[in-house]
Amino acid sequence: MAQTIAALSTAPGGAIGIVRISGDAAESCLRALFTPVGSRDLQPRVLTYGVLTVHGRVIDRPMAVFFPAPATYTGEPMAEIHCHGSSAVLQAVLSALFDLGARQAEPGEFTRRAFLNGKLDLFAAEAVGDLVTAHSEQAAALAVSQLGGHMSTEFADMRQRLIAVCAQFLAVIDYPDEEIEDLPLTEIGQTLSDMRARLNALHESYSRGRALREGLPCAIIGRPNAGKSTLLNALLGYDRAIVTDIAGTTRDTVEETLCLGGLVLRLQDTAGLRETDDPVEKIGVSRARDAVRHAAESGVVLAVFDGSKPVGGEDRMVMREAKNAARAVAILNKADLLRAEGWEELSDCFRAVVPLSAKHREGLSELTDTLLTLTGVRDLPSDGGLITNIRQAETLKRTAERLELAAEHLKAGFSPDAVVYDIEGAIESLGELTGQSVQNDIVDHIFANFCVGK
Amino acid sequence: MAQTIAALSTAPGGAIGIVRISGDAAESCLRALFTPVGSRDLQPRVLTYGVLTVHGRVIDRPMAVFFPAPATYTGEPMAEIHCHGSSAVLQAVLSALFDLGARQAEPGEFTRRAFLNGKLDLFAAEAVGDLVTAHSEQAAALAVSQLGGHMSTEFADMRQRLIAVCAQFLAVIDYPDEEIEDLPLTEIGQTLSDMRARLNALHESYSRGRALREGLPCAIIGRPNAGKSTLLNALLGYDRAIVTDIAGTTRDTVEETLCLGGLVLRLQDTAGLRETDDPVEKIGVSRARDAVRHAAESGVVLAVFDGSKPVGGEDRMVMREAKNAARAVAILNKADLLRAEGWEELSDCFRAVVPLSAKHREGLSELTDTLLTLTGVRDLPSDGGLITNIRQAETLKRTAERLELAAEHLKAGFSPDAVVYDIEGAIESLGELTGQSVQNDIVDHIFANFCVGK
Repeated sequence: MAQTIAALSTAPGGAIGIVRISGDAAESCLRALFTPVGSRDLQPRVLTYGVLTVHGRVIDRPMAVFFPAPATYTGEPMAEIHCHGSSAVLQAVLSALFDLGARQAEPGEFTRRAFLNGKLDLFAAEAVGDLVTAHSEQAAALAVSQLGGHMSTEFADMRQRLIAVCAQFLAVIDYPDEEIEDLPLTEIGQTLSDMRARLNALHESYSRGRALREGLPCAIIGRPNAGKSTLLNALLGYDRAIVTDIAGTTRDTVEETLCLGGLVLRLQDTAGLRETDDPVEKIGVSRARDAVRHAAESGVVLAVFDGSKPVGGEDRMVMREAKNAARAVAILNKADLLRAEGWEELSDCFRAVVPLSAKHREGLSELTDTLLTLTGVRDLPSDGGLITNIRQAETLKRTAERLELAAEHLKAGFSPDAVVYDIEGAIESLGELTGQSVQNDIVDHIFANFCVGK
Repeated sequence: MAQTIAALSTAPGGAIGIVRISGDAAESCLRALFTPVGSRDLQPRVLTYGVLTVHGRVIDRPMAVFFPAPATYTGEPMAEIHCHGSSAVLQAVLSALFDLGARQAEPGEFTRRAFLNGKLDLFAAEAVGDLVTAHSEQAAALAVSQLGGHMSTEFADMRQRLIAVCAQFLAVIDYPDEEIEDLPLTEIGQTLSDMRARLNALHESYSRGRALREGLPCAIIGRPNAGKSTLLNALLGYDRAIVTDIAGTTRDTVEETLCLGGLVLRLQDTAGLRETDDPVEKIGVSRARDAVRHAAESGVVLAVFDGSKPVGGEDRMVMREAKNAARAVAILNKADLLRAEGWEELSDCFRAVVPLSAKHREGLSELTDTLLTLTGVRDLPSDGGLITNIRQAETLKRTAERLELAAEHLKAGFSPDAVVYDIEGAIESLGELTGQSVQNDIVDHIFANFCVGK
């Protein structure tokens, strides 16, 4: 019997604050503090108005609800108290619940219990975390799709098919009068190979999935007065962007975040990219170059050029800087004043050249289109078949490798035990993905990254 | 017919985010976005699990609920969508609702509608705002009591009684064969005088009510090494204090907030209170003196002395500083090492002297007791008969003054019209308190101070 847990599930400071309770004592804990007002008693799943009494004092008039097991999020009895948002009241409610025997829920513990009670597999549980922190509608839709279980079902099916294949081989091993040649080896080989291809494709979807979930680093570079800031402001204004601070791995830099048609760009400051002898400015330029390099490796580089002037030496420096970027777009700014000298060479250096006027906000939707195509965010699979986290990506890769080995060994005429050994490895890996076979420390790690109250 | 409104009712960043909808289209708006999962349809007040579809894309799997009018908070049809906390999802939900014809709710508009639809009087509506921002259980309990309607009922009763008195006078005015001497003048005089006394008592409760709601400014002063920081840390550790930042009227100073047994103290930095010639330090000392003066006027001054040493010149300076404080407590620190030279003079300067050891955390509960008594927070009326805001306080004062005039004029034998004129003024004022007669700009002002989503 799991101990009853409680936590604040909303951020502090709102008009409503929710305390969530899960465990066998959820309903009795709720009833100890909450009394409905009027003639209605608490009914399952019905939000009911009442008074909240702590230490003999009525400290709120909240709504409350309880959910009987097992049709709840965690699979356990659950309850919620929807207080007015006062942090003092919410603290008092939690303290009172702890006095009643509940304990503070750990980060992600509600979802962890949902997983342990079979309400969600591990793959879907991870999607819950992604959903809470989704920075765009597209990222949310992907997480919901993963949460919905399509992919989980696919992985479970694959695992069953591999178990069936294993069983065929084991029959040969256990009953000597069976012959391995009697097995449909070509068909089995094809199954393993198809599966491997699908797993590899999913593994490769990770970079797109991550872009969607975390956003891509994006550096706007260009010589002074090319229009970098004007472009930034135009983009921010254009899409009524959701601008938030994403707490990155390096917490000392604050980034501006821009959401363009589902593509989340984490804009990095790259001011002052030029040759200098000043030692302090050198440090700044070096940092800017680091940002550009980071964006060039795993993100997007927007190189801004002033189309109203002929190509200059500083522009060539910018072109060289962008040359190594995986995804770089040349923005030929001030296109309304375009002078044609030399700008055609941009097409040699960049996969895409977008003429626009940041000042007049013309050409911005073309830029968005180009970026969506370039980053692959536009063509999301409708079944949510994208992988969004490194654990899943690595597990898929490991599974695919084991299947490849199995197929090779099969082809090379290895003994049935050798093939079974490889396939069992793949079954194990797939089980890690969905949580059917997974070590506790991995589970700990996954839920530790959740917020409290989820 | 009021337009349907929608707003985010939780603070951004939690595990759960709630979008609240009120108005005739609340249910249809909800149904346009939300489809229950499984066989259950949406039932009134039943929290139901489902999928949320925006622009043809499923972007969340939230819980949702609708409440048919009139048994709702606002008195209108209402609905709530309980999303996973992603700000992108919540923004998308709001946008979709606006596309469906709802508009963004203004600050406090849900509560304003509750008031306009007669679900709450104005006095109770103001208590909702107090409840959301309550910094202690006691402040919450007071707000809930006001929300519960005890006081509202009392004010409404008073108003009815005054209307009845008016009617008696009007009968004399309208029907000349009635004589004013026929009226029970002594009894009426007594009624007016009792009422005035009650209103004055409530008006005077404002300083305590405000202390409870907003907390009191508190300056900890003392010469260097008297133990100010040790005391602060001991207090913070002692009560497992709720330490939050209260956004004060001057937003550029961040205060630490300490909740001691219901008394909220807003600690102000007073480091460096000493004579100095350094111009920069002078500014700091001048600010510190301002903080002390503020705490001395309307809050609490904790003057810390080192009991292990004899009284010194700097100690005398601290005593002088504390002398003008409305509520100052002398803390004789290092009481375990107490040397008796001269400390008895503290009782001449301070209403209370508490020996304690901040280092060994001894005597802290005595200090809390002393502070609760000194500030009147301990003896809260159980009926919540405290006034917490300046509008209420001033309206009560105005009402009491009109009643006093009425009583005087009655006593002096003024004509019935004159007495009626005064009583009608009092009726009008009482109506402002509960909102029965109140001007729109006052209502605007009250709800503008609410948070959005409440």
